[in-house]
Formats: sequence, C-alpha cells, structure tokens
Amino acid sequence: MTTKPHIPTAAESASDEKQTGRVEAFSDGVFAIAITLLVLELKTPHIPAMPPAEHGPPTAAWLCEELLKEWPSYIAFITSFLSVLIMWMHHHAMFKLVKRVSPALLLANGVLLLAVSIVPFPTAVVAEYMTTPAASTAAALYSGAFVFVALTFVAVLLTALRPECLAADADPKVVRTFRRTYWIGPPCYGLALAAAAFNPWISMAICTALWMLWAGMMLPRRKA
Amino acid sequence: MTTKPHIPTAAESASDEKQTGRVEAFSDGVFAIAITLLVLELKTPHIPAMPPAEHGPPTAAWLCEELLKEWPSYIAFITSFLSVLIMWMHHHAMFKLVKRVSPALLLANGVLLLAVSIVPFPTAVVAEYMTTPAASTAAALYSGAFVFVALTFVAVLLTALRPECLAADADPKVVRTFRRTYWIGPPCYGLALAAAAFNPWISMAICTALWMLWAGMMLPRRKA
Amino acid sequence: MTTKPHIPTAAESASDEKQTGRVEAFSDGVFAIAITLLVLELKTPHIPAMPPAEHGPPTAAWLCEELLKEWPSYIAFITSFLSVLIMWMHHHAMFKLVKRVSPALLLANGVLLLAVSIVPFPTAVVAEYMTTPAASTAAALYSGAFVFVALTFVAVLLTALRPECLAADADPKVVRTFRRTYWIGPPCYGLALAAAAFNPWISMAICTALWMLWAGMMLPRRKA
Amino acid sequence: MTTKPHIPTAAESASDEKQTGRVEAFSDGVFAIAITLLVLELKTPHIPAMPPAEHGPPTAAWLCEELLKEWPSYIAFITSFLSVLIMWMHHHAMFKLVKRVSPALLLANGVLLLAVSIVPFPTAVVAEYMTTPAASTAAALYSGAFVFVALTFVAVLLTALRPECLAADADPKVVRTFRRTYWIGPPCYGLALAAAAFNPWISMAICTALWMLWAGMMLPRRKA
Repeated sequence: MTTKPHIPTAAESASDEKQTGRVEAFSDGVFAIAITLLVLELKTPHIPAMPPAEHGPPTAAWLCEELLKEWPSYIAFITSFLSVLIMWMHHHAMFKLVKRVSPALLLANGVLLLAVSIVPFPTAVVAEYMTTPAASTAAALYSGAFVFVALTFVAVLLTALRPECLAADADPKVVRTFRRTYWIGPPCYGLALAAAAFNPWISMAICTALWMLWAGMMLPRRKA
Repeated sequence: MTTKPHIPTAAESASDEKQTGRVEAFSDGVFAIAITLLVLELKTPHIPAMPPAEHGPPTAAWLCEELLKEWPSYIAFITSFLSVLIMWMHHHAMFKLVKRVSPALLLANGVLLLAVSIVPFPTAVVAEYMTTPAASTAAALYSGAFVFVALTFVAVLLTALRPECLAADADPKVVRTFRRTYWIGPPCYGLALAAAAFNPWISMAICTALWMLWAGMMLPRRKA
Repeated sequence: MTTKPHIPTAAESASDEKQTGRVEAFSDGVFAIAITLLVLELKTPHIPAMPPAEHGPPTAAWLCEELLKEWPSYIAFITSFLSVLIMWMHHHAMFKLVKRVSPALLLANGVLLLAVSIVPFPTAVVAEYMTTPAASTAAALYSGAFVFVALTFVAVLLTALRPECLAADADPKVVRTFRRTYWIGPPCYGLALAAAAFNPWISMAICTALWMLWAGMMLPRRKA
Repeated sequence: MTTKPHIPTAAESASDEKQTGRVEAFSDGVFAIAITLLVLELKTPHIPAMPPAEHGPPTAAWLCEELLKEWPSYIAFITSFLSVLIMWMHHHAMFKLVKRVSPALLLANGVLLLAVSIVPFPTAVVAEYMTTPAASTAAALYSGAFVFVALTFVAVLLTALRPECLAADADPKVVRTFRRTYWIGPPCYGLALAAAAFNPWISMAICTALWMLWAGMMLPRRKA
C-alpha cells in the first residue's frame, strides 16, 4: 500500500503544471495574434490612386491589375504566416519537455515573444520594397529579424533544457536532437543576411528554404 | 473487477488530450482574432472628405448620409463575421472526433488557419468596390478566397478522419455525414467564383446562401 | 455499491463541461480582443497637421494642446472599455448557470459576439464627432449599437435559461433575477437613442448611467 | 474512512478555481493583445515620402536611412513590450495568492486591464515626438500613463490580499513582500512625470530603470 518511488503529490504536480500552463497560454496568445495581425499588411487598393477625371470610375480590369500588383505582399504574408506557425510548433515541442519554469526561462521566453511579435514589421517592409531598387535593405531587415528570432530560440532552448526545468521523463534522444539542431538557425539566417547585400532574392529564398527545413525537422519528430 | 477492454491509462489519455487541446486553443485564438479584426474595416467617415470652406462644419445629416453610404461595408462585415463563426463551429465539430494530432493534421490545420486569417482582406475589397463597376473583380476575389477555405476544410477533414487521429468512440454516422458533406464546399464556391464574371451580386448571394447552408447542416447535427 | 440517484458518468459530464468551456473560451477571446482594439482609436497627433513653414518644429505646448483636444476620444475609450468589461462579467455570470450548449444558444451567442465586436466602430464615430454639429448622429449610432447589444443579451438569456441548457443546480433565485432584469436593457438604450435626436449629451449620459447600473446589478449578485 | 480535517468538496473547489481561472484567462488575453498590438506602431516608411520626380525610385540607402531614422520607435517598442511583459508576470504572481474573486477585485482588475491596454498609445506618442522639441510632453504622457498603471496595481493588490480573496495557504512572507514593494511604484513614476518637465530623457530613463527594478524584484521571488 506504500508507494516507494517518489511520486509528486497532487499539490506539487498541480502547481508545476499550472506554471507551465500559464506561460504556454500567454505564449499561444502572442503567437496567435502576431500570426493574425499579418493580414493587416494586405492593403485594399484605394480608388483615389486613380484620378477619376482621367479614367472614370474604377473598372474590373483596373482593380484586378491593382490586386495583382501587390503579389509581393501575398508572398510575404504566406512566408511569414508559415514561419510563425512553425515557430509555434517548435515552441510547443520544446515546452512538452519542460516541467518547471525558472526565472531565466521566463525571461528568455519573453524575449522570444518579443522577436515573434516583431515579424509583421519586416514582412510589411519586404512587401512594399521587394520589387524596388531598395529590395536589398528590405531583405536584410527581414533576414536580420530572423537571426534575432533564431537566437532567442537558442536562448529558450538553453534555459528550458537545464535540469531545474526539464521534465524527469523527457526522452534523452529528443533532447539531444533539439540541442544539436537549434544551433543551425542563427548562422543560416546570418547567411541570408549576408546574401541580402548581393541579391535580395537569394536572401529571401534562403529564409523560405529554412522554414521548410524547420517544418521538415518538426514533422517526423512528432511521428516518433 | 478486472477491466478487459483496453482502457487508456491516465498518462496515455492525458497526453492525447493535451495535444488536441493545444491545437484547438491556438486555432480558437486565430479564429477569435480574425473575426474581431473584421471591425477594423468599418471606417469612420473623416471630416476632411468635405471641404470646410464650401460646406461649413459637418452636420448631423451629412454624417448620417456618409454612414449610410457605407452600407456595403456593413453587409460585408456581417457576412464575413457569420462565415468565420460557422467555420469555427465546424472546426470544433470536427475536432470533437479527433484524439491524436498527426503531423499531416497539424500542417493541414495550419493552412486552414492561414485561409481563415485571410478573410478580412477580401471582405475589405468587397466593401470598397461592390457598388462600383469593379464589383465583379471584388466578388471573384471573395468567392475565390472561400474556394481556398473550403479546400483547406476538406484537407483537414481527410487528415483528421484517418485512423491514427480519429477517436475510437467517434460515431461512424457522424463521420460519414462529415465525409459526404464537405466535398460540396469547393465546387459550390467555385460556382460563385464563375458567377462573378457574369453578375457579382449572384456570386455574393451564393456565398451568403452557402454559409446559411453550413449553419443549417451544423445545427441539427449538434442536436443529435 | 449501486448509486441510485442518477449521477452523470465521467464521460457524460466531461463532454458537457467541454462544450461550455469551448464556447466560453472563444467568447472570452472575442471580448478580450474587442476591448483591446479600442486603444487603436486613440490617435497620435501627427506633425504634418502643423505646416512646418509657418510654425517651426512641434513644441511641447502644441503637442499638449493637440492631445487635450482629443478628450472626447478618451471619454469614449473609457466608456466603451468599461461597457465591454461589464458585458463580459454578465456573460460569465450567465454561463455559470449553463451546463449544455444547444444549437439555438450557440447561434444567439454568436450574434452577441457580433454585437460586442462592433462596439469599437460607434466608439470611434462618437470620438470624432461628439464635439461637432454632427454629434446627434454619432450619439444615435452609439446608443443604437447598444440597443442591438442589449437585444442579443436578451436572446442569449432566453436560450440559455431553457431546460435543455440550464444547469440542474442553478439557483432559481438567481435565474429569476436574470429573467427580470435583462428586459430593462433594450427599452433603456432605446430611450438613449430617442434622446439623441434632442440632445446628444443626454443620450451619452444615459448610456454611461446604464453601464453603471449594470455594474451595480452585477456586483452584489456575485457576493451572494 | 472518514476525513476529519475539512477538505473542500469537488464542487466547492471547482467553483473557486473556475472563478480565478476565468479572470486570469481574460486578463491573459488582454495582456497578450496589448503587447502584440505594440508592433502596429512600427511604421513602414512609405515611398510617397520621397517625390519620385526629384529622386527616382527608392534606393537601398534611402530605405536604410528611413528605417534608421525611426530608432525612437524601436526603443519605445522594446521598452513598452518588456514593461507589459513584466506587468503580466507580476499579475500572475499576485493571482497565485488568490483563491476567490470578490466584486471589488473584479472591478480593480478591470481598471488595471484598462491601464494596460492604454500603453500602446503613449508609446506611439513617445516614438513620434521623442526627438522633437515636444519631447517633454510625450515623456510626461508616458510616465503619467505608468503612474496610472502603478496605482491600479496597488488597487488590485489591496483587494486581492483581503481575507475574502487570499488563499489560505498563501505564504505570509510573500504577501508581506508584495505589500511592502507595490507602494514604491506610484511615487517613482510620479518622479519620472516631474522629471519630464526638466529633461524628457531623464524621465524615460527613470521609466526604463523602474521596469528593470520590477523585473529584478520578480525573478528572485519566483526562485524561492
């Protein structure tokens, strides 16, 4: 009738669960809002852009053309949406390994949320300038923002996988894979940042390739 | 006293619940934000629209007229609000049948959220152009966006109802109804898209009729 | 060993709880977003409003004056914030009495959320026009929006307190108080709407007095 | 088989937990949205700002310069983000001590949320005017807003730590520390407000130093 192995009491484990639960719920909120605010960058073409005296009322062909002209906005929207979505998946995969929230983890997670909530800004700049001669600056801002995001992910990982936070039953293999793969982020986005000086399209292509890589790394691990 | 049929242990079922819970909470967040952002498309008429030198300060009649002129915004707001609301209801009805989240379901659900979060954009375009000669382009964009939404719903359905995700106790009748009815969406919205070329009002009427249909399909099923 | 009084099985009650939980979580999201979006109506005064050639760079006194000029925005912000906050409190007080979600309740609650998410729009109109001759139209729009809100609250109440939704252990006294008091809303806001034709300030004063009344009704009931 | 010490029944404790849970979830939503809306103040530089006839299309150097010119926006964004993040941490630390929600606590918490949701407004004003001669007004508005926030924190603390709300098992030491330290806020931000009249940069420096202080006070307490 006595349970020899130390099993946390209801009170203990409830308190542990709760702490992680709150941080995750707040983080989920920030991720969900940041991802949904991206749509605000898709601008309705406005009629005043076409002087009525010269052209008459807006025609179907004109609106169609105006909408098509904004294609860089659509690509920027989709790329950023999927990037934030995959960040959210990784955030949760990481927090599945965490039992207790240390002050350092709280702080690192806060800075990660700051980085995530910034994403709509470089997205808007890329959408507006990717087809102009200022594209290289826009691509540098975008990839630079993701260097920052990748660094905050490493910071969260380093604090989350410390013994005071890590769940006792976390699979050591999964932990090792996390440790090994997260270091790849910052130098890869750094490469995209460097590439922006030469060719903004290569820079953006690297960013896109990277979130496909993160998605790929994510999905098989979940299956296991 | 022994329970022969396999009943998942507390640990097993807790982990299952949790996975769905997170995806649902994040999805709820995106639905709630997308639905509330729609109000930002309702624009306050601005005084500068009326040259003060010619008319004097804004009068009650002028403001009333300006507000009434924006009626397409109000209709677009209500239609999109109810559409997203009913999508949310269907999303939950689907996830009630799901126990485990597969990588494919996570991805399909992510693309569905992308589609949902886009809705405020075509809504704004319809609100601005539905009463101009450019209405057919606006209606095509709107119904086209819903073709995309309907396709992502089919994708989520196909991945959610696979054996690795489906709850063991899901009612086969309900599952069959889902399978049968979700295929209707894409061709119906495709019809609305085609109609936009001839008459934008018919296109919008089909979109409105469709969300009434989805609402109707939803409500009786809940009762059962 | 047999339990004579029918006690719901874990599966039954879990499913009941869950249904309400989801609707409440989604509603909470919409309330929280609608209330926070109100701040977007507080506009930063922009420098171009002052031709630099005539006045030089913006001075501390000029900015102070510009900020003070926007006082109707601040009052509108506070009034609407507190109104939505009190609506949220009433929404929760109502849902504490609910066990099961019927299709009709889902629909009524959806229309209530629509009404709540509209609030930032009349708030912005009042903020911009309350000190102009167009104030009566603005006040009519504002009080008209709250007539709609009040009607949707009655609709949710009527569907929520039906036997198929009401919790078996709901205090009949509390239910009676709800039934008695919610009918007051629509005619009172209707009075504010009528008053707008004569004096917009009286109309707004009635709206303010009403949310104080709702707050007052709310708070003592909670104590009991 | 009889449990002598009074242990709350499932119904009792569930009802207690639930009340706090709802208020916390709603508060989390408002904090998460307020913190994420801050990014909307980071404005994309617009091409029309540069007459095309005079300069040709936008160049990389021009965009870079335009982005760098907005440095006060970035500092304001980071300062406000971290301030709201730390407020959220304190809010949760306080609510960990609370078991029951009194009407007074509900009201005080509502006013606190109002204060939190205002933060993006003074942030935007500071971002636009901190490098102009109007900086002292902007700094006064910013520090004034934080005087209000600090006062609402004191109000929540006073109502939360009353016997009818406080959890029976709250650590008296932690409660005492809260009581002692929260009074520091209003006079400190008052000092920043007074400093704005003399030097806006000193005023902003005090505000920044204060959230570092709050962060420092927060983190060790969590460890214990």
